[in-house]
Amino acid sequence: MIKTLEWTEQGVRFIDQTKLPTEEVYLLCKTHQEVADAIRNMVVRGAPAIGVAAAMGIALGARNSKSKELSDFRKEFDVFCETQRVTRPTAVNLFWAIQRMREKFESLTHLPVQQIRDGLVKEAQTMYLEDIAANQAMGKNGAVLMPPSGGVLTHCNAGALATAGYGTALGVIRAAVEAGKKISVYADETRPFLQGSRLTAWELAKDNIPVTVITDNMAGHVMKERKVDCVVVGADRIAANGDTANKIGTYMVAVLAKQHKIPFYVAAPISTIDLSLSSGEQIPIEERDAREVTHVRDQQLAPDGVAVHNFAFDVTPNELIAAIITDRGVARSPYKESLKSFVTGASASASQ
Amino acid sequence: MIKTLEWTEQGVRFIDQTKLPTEEVYLLCKTHQEVADAIRNMVVRGAPAIGVAAAMGIALGARNSKSKELSDFRKEFDVFCETQRVTRPTAVNLFWAIQRMREKFESLTHLPVQQIRDGLVKEAQTMYLEDIAANQAMGKNGAVLMPPSGGVLTHCNAGALATAGYGTALGVIRAAVEAGKKISVYADETRPFLQGSRLTAWELAKDNIPVTVITDNMAGHVMKERKVDCVVVGADRIAANGDTANKIGTYMVAVLAKQHKIPFYVAAPISTIDLSLSSGEQIPIEERDAREVTHVRDQQLAPDGVAVHNFAFDVTPNELIAAIITDRGVARSPYKESLKSFVTGASASASQ
Repeated sequence: MIKTLEWTEQGVRFIDQTKLPTEEVYLLCKTHQEVADAIRNMVVRGAPAIGVAAAMGIALGARNSKSKELSDFRKEFDVFCETQRVTRPTAVNLFWAIQRMREKFESLTHLPVQQIRDGLVKEAQTMYLEDIAANQAMGKNGAVLMPPSGGVLTHCNAGALATAGYGTALGVIRAAVEAGKKISVYADETRPFLQGSRLTAWELAKDNIPVTVITDNMAGHVMKERKVDCVVVGADRIAANGDTANKIGTYMVAVLAKQHKIPFYVAAPISTIDLSLSSGEQIPIEERDAREVTHVRDQQLAPDGVAVHNFAFDVTPNELIAAIITDRGVARSPYKESLKSFVTGASASASQ
Repeated sequence: MIKTLEWTEQGVRFIDQTKLPTEEVYLLCKTHQEVADAIRNMVVRGAPAIGVAAAMGIALGARNSKSKELSDFRKEFDVFCETQRVTRPTAVNLFWAIQRMREKFESLTHLPVQQIRDGLVKEAQTMYLEDIAANQAMGKNGAVLMPPSGGVLTHCNAGALATAGYGTALGVIRAAVEAGKKISVYADETRPFLQGSRLTAWELAKDNIPVTVITDNMAGHVMKERKVDCVVVGADRIAANGDTANKIGTYMVAVLAKQHKIPFYVAAPISTIDLSLSSGEQIPIEERDAREVTHVRDQQLAPDGVAVHNFAFDVTPNELIAAIITDRGVARSPYKESLKSFVTGASASASQ
């Protein structure tokens, strides 16, 4: 089993995703600042994994704290939360996880500080386990939408490496394969960070699920050649109307899927849904360092000083999405109603 | 001026496009085999440049030949042609150029062998000059289609480096800029060979034309953000019905342009039009070495042994193309009629 991140007595241990697939090395973060750096530098990435990592970062800060008084500990706790908050802007799971840790903190303030610390560590570990369970539920809910046999295209990495384990989009594929479906995956390489070729190909190969890497610009051609029966991707933030922010290039895949009448699915846990935003236009889109585009490691790919855009995400409008697969069921259009009912905990079966 | 390729007394001299943009080095090919290798290895690429290079390769073989008898020379000449023919399958300019050299050969067989040699060398040089003139005509014909100011997206490199000089798609952009239009270019980086970031950005920067490099998967997002007013790309082969083979990813850009109601233009000389093929389905699509996808120079981007597709081209159906800009005028749908009239030399003005 792939250990994307793990709480240990020494700190939070991450598989270093910047080094895959050529090196499988682990990074032990011993402070909350080191965890924040790991998120910012994409040692760990993927919305659900970022959420759990931030919770563990806060828990680590709490565990390392020497405060004896609640007022002192609260000031420190606010710093732990803020340090995680400013790492990345788009994935809402980060803010969801911080909010959940804040609520846990408030629920424990009647206890001695040491017990608050213990409670926060336990909460982060619970969130880790809940994320794996959510992915398994999502897999079960989504597997029925996968073809009995055929090609499934995915973009970026929405796998075990993007979560505490099992994956969102790749969780759906894993569950379909476990149910006996014969799935062959097309993995867009996903420039500039190459999560598809580096991470998705690596983790599917480990599970012996057939995978073919293509450059992002081949997606249209393989669809035109009828090699793709459906698309399934993850999400970094889903607005109340179903508009979905995900890795740059997802929107392009959705437009191509529409052109070829191929269903386009999003798989994400409830924690990715942000009902506070009415549409995707309000989702902040991170722009990252130009060097990610102009270089691959030390190899320069563009002239010195060239202008570059490096939008890390784009927004796919709800009308291009055939269904949103969640841990509480499969949401269909109109998403404003279906997503709201899932988030507020109404019976999932009613909307399936 | 960029010297993409050049006939010299020593042989055919190419700027080595595999080394750009970090190194501007030149490769002197002293034999027809070395020219064929330069085409195969993409030291020179771009349909019009490949055509001129092949003609020069054949001319170089002829010039180096020691044959005194026509029958011996003809056997050698057939080898020179065949050596060029088997380099790359998609760009029809290659076969067009070989055919033109064959016709020149046949037209000279009444002369002494040395004069045939001289005639073949002269023909290749004529083709070089004609290609530049065609690009300038195309530029003039296409410039009027460019916006007075705004963003123009291009894919791959259809510039001076893809031709004897000036460029096809980039020739249109150059002519628009020369006519006073304020064009800002978005260059898709164009994986796997990165002709956009390595070559288009390099040559536009040399001409002080504003250029911003984006990853291929950002094209949808920048269109959605209304940064792009039109798209112009080159072509490797255009079927009689207007279906256009061009660098992998072109089809994707055309679908995105349709989604955003942005005009999508193709710019190509008459030599790129293949009336012998009724539709794009008949165009052979080259598949290249997986290593182009799994590696950038010595950097490994994917797990060992992973399956990869590396289609070098795709086909954009005619219905996605707003116009085909040629050196003889601007062809519009129905392309079957407009392209035929241009190729067979009917008045261009009638179809503009």
